[in-house]
Amino acid sequence: MAARETGGMAVRCAGRIGVAASVAVNLALLVMYIRRRYFGGSRSGEENTVEPSKGKPPVTPDSVVNLDHGDPTMYKKFWKGIGHRATIVIPGWQTMSYFSDLSGFCWFVEPGFEREVRRLHRLVGNAVVEGYHLLVGTGSTQLFQAALYALSPAEDGKPMSVVSPAPYYSSYPSVTNYLNSGLYRWDGDANTFDGDTCIELVCSPNNPDGSIRKTTVKAKYGKTIHDFAYYWPQHTPITEAASHDIMLFTVSKCTGHAGTRLGWALVKDTEVAQKMIKFLELNTIGVSKDSQLRAAKILKAVCDGYELSPASEANRLFHFAQRKMAERWSRLRATVAASGIFSLPNELSGYCTFAKEIVAANPPFAWLRCHKDGVEDLEGFLRENKIMTRGGPKFGVDERVVRVSMLDTDEAFDVFINRVASLK
Amino acid sequence: MAARETGGMAVRCAGRIGVAASVAVNLALLVMYIRRRYFGGSRSGEENTVEPSKGKPPVTPDSVVNLDHGDPTMYKKFWKGIGHRATIVIPGWQTMSYFSDLSGFCWFVEPGFEREVRRLHRLVGNAVVEGYHLLVGTGSTQLFQAALYALSPAEDGKPMSVVSPAPYYSSYPSVTNYLNSGLYRWDGDANTFDGDTCIELVCSPNNPDGSIRKTTVKAKYGKTIHDFAYYWPQHTPITEAASHDIMLFTVSKCTGHAGTRLGWALVKDTEVAQKMIKFLELNTIGVSKDSQLRAAKILKAVCDGYELSPASEANRLFHFAQRKMAERWSRLRATVAASGIFSLPNELSGYCTFAKEIVAANPPFAWLRCHKDGVEDLEGFLRENKIMTRGGPKFGVDERVVRVSMLDTDEAFDVFINRVASLK
Repeated sequence: MAARETGGMAVRCAGRIGVAASVAVNLALLVMYIRRRYFGGSRSGEENTVEPSKGKPPVTPDSVVNLDHGDPTMYKKFWKGIGHRATIVIPGWQTMSYFSDLSGFCWFVEPGFEREVRRLHRLVGNAVVEGYHLLVGTGSTQLFQAALYALSPAEDGKPMSVVSPAPYYSSYPSVTNYLNSGLYRWDGDANTFDGDTCIELVCSPNNPDGSIRKTTVKAKYGKTIHDFAYYWPQHTPITEAASHDIMLFTVSKCTGHAGTRLGWALVKDTEVAQKMIKFLELNTIGVSKDSQLRAAKILKAVCDGYELSPASEANRLFHFAQRKMAERWSRLRATVAASGIFSLPNELSGYCTFAKEIVAANPPFAWLRCHKDGVEDLEGFLRENKIMTRGGPKFGVDERVVRVSMLDTDEAFDVFINRVASLK
Repeated sequence: MAARETGGMAVRCAGRIGVAASVAVNLALLVMYIRRRYFGGSRSGEENTVEPSKGKPPVTPDSVVNLDHGDPTMYKKFWKGIGHRATIVIPGWQTMSYFSDLSGFCWFVEPGFEREVRRLHRLVGNAVVEGYHLLVGTGSTQLFQAALYALSPAEDGKPMSVVSPAPYYSSYPSVTNYLNSGLYRWDGDANTFDGDTCIELVCSPNNPDGSIRKTTVKAKYGKTIHDFAYYWPQHTPITEAASHDIMLFTVSKCTGHAGTRLGWALVKDTEVAQKMIKFLELNTIGVSKDSQLRAAKILKAVCDGYELSPASEANRLFHFAQRKMAERWSRLRATVAASGIFSLPNELSGYCTFAKEIVAANPPFAWLRCHKDGVEDLEGFLRENKIMTRGGPKFGVDERVVRVSMLDTDEAFDVFINRVASLK
């Protein structure tokens, strides 16, 4: 308030000293002068920005194109367009404590982050937030492990079986087993599981094949973890506000900020949520506050883009990404149809409560199958053609299928399409 | 350059329009006006700053004072004094990729962070960096687990024994055992270990008691992890540039940025470093780039404070913190001596190659023992007196000793000292 009033005074002062000519021009020049004076001769704050990390090297028509990981660099264009509204500034003295909010349910969740996440779910309508605890993790990968820990009482001393229907996300087996835990162990394809007790991982839309999934296993004491990394309007029609026991999300696949390593969980049961917190305390003593503050700013910009800004795609993340994905899928389907040797899963579509119309699903990965004689190992075949993908065996299925990221830069996607078109 | 020249022009313009009276005052008022106009009625950039997390509630003379955790809020004053030189600005489009630098040894280490860490060690002289791989972790806690994973081949199928001499850091047993890993298990006090193979955790200066430690165990196939969280000039004389196989550090206890959750490891052996990277990939797919960029900025400010800025304590983190710790220890030792019922470990001192003089050690924790009859459970006794500490049993020793954080705010420390003084 003080600044506003003094600002008004400044206007009166400026009037009084009779700058008749062009206050606006002089103000603009003064801004530059002041920036120089107070911010050291550069654009405001520029000395405080950092050199951006290099990421992957740029793709050229002759280079290898790496579509093995789902690196969501496609989103960079949108965020360049958003400009300073998504910029975060953190002074050196801020958020130094281990603690975010001792009065909250989880002491290391930043209140501003929690608020924007709940607001986003209300905007999109993809998950119920009322009655849920919100936890934060270093990516949803960490929260997945926290959930395994919370759901594995190991009462009989035997590790809990962890299953998912093939094709399943390639990281599930390795992340479940790398520490050889006595609490849980990977037990493979949920379709063939016939035990009494298990944890089923339900990834929907599914990584790698984009299918829409419900619980498969009919175990007597089955528990589920819903991996909703891709349950966002750019990838699939939003058909309901999901309300499962444990639901995992991540900014990586919602806004494209993979490097921020931030996920969240909506958890219904208080005791389960408390055990997950315990895991996060032991594993990393909570979660980076810088990442949480940045994610809060990013998610705020997404919500503001729908609720406060003029209705333009430049402000609307999901519209930008949905159009981009639809264009890419259209090009890929045409190229695959023309190839004669490849195939893709059928296109799904449905009424989206967010878009308020029937829309096609645009999965984050292409699940590409090859029917050419002699190509038994598709990952190897594509690698020979300088396309890095992830082969079916890592997802629990055969070698004639691969997962290809649809989320990379336009340049990488173009090179990919041209190479696929050249394969007969 | 354009900004500089136009800035100069603005000064000439201001002269021309004849603001004879007080250009400085008008400029100040105009700054406020411009801030209001361009930055939405608040301090420059404030719309991009975020609400700071609440941290712990402030301490009052009557409130509970929580010195259980080593929450390093003492450092906030220093960073407020440093001002914008430690502020970080991250535009929305930056560091979105999973990858930091595919040409580096570790794909998720930000090159700017690595550069500042190596610069800092060269400045302080507490660790050799040449010939070492640098890894980053979500706090040194995560790197500790990565090291256990890397050093536990479990060739014979038996979990590797993990030991440390009592009193040992209270988190070592729980962090080692929470997943009931088949790779490693906590095996207690290193002083009583007599097996052939183990991993020894060497924390020096030691948490909780501040002692200087070397390897204890003479196991045939012993491996060590050196936890150097506190091997910084504010806590202990720097006596050598350490050069052990695995050395762990953290910004929490170096600069006070615990909320940033960032640690690093210096690792000599390439294969061990690669296994640690594998753990960090599986556990969290790398480490928050926002935290790394912020830590790089913070560490740069620390180094610049010694190498580029005028020699004043306001610029020199280790001098600020060393003086603060020395004052606190002096007050605590006087209070304890006057109490008649408490004791502390003897003061250590030595020649510090960084300070270039003989200095006393000022450990981050007070290891406080009580000799009063009837007080068997010191943690409980202090809790009744509204002082939260961590009792000896959590560190593998008796109940008549507690660990007290020396790193909290001045207000909390004052209340603590007054309460201790009142106990007879």
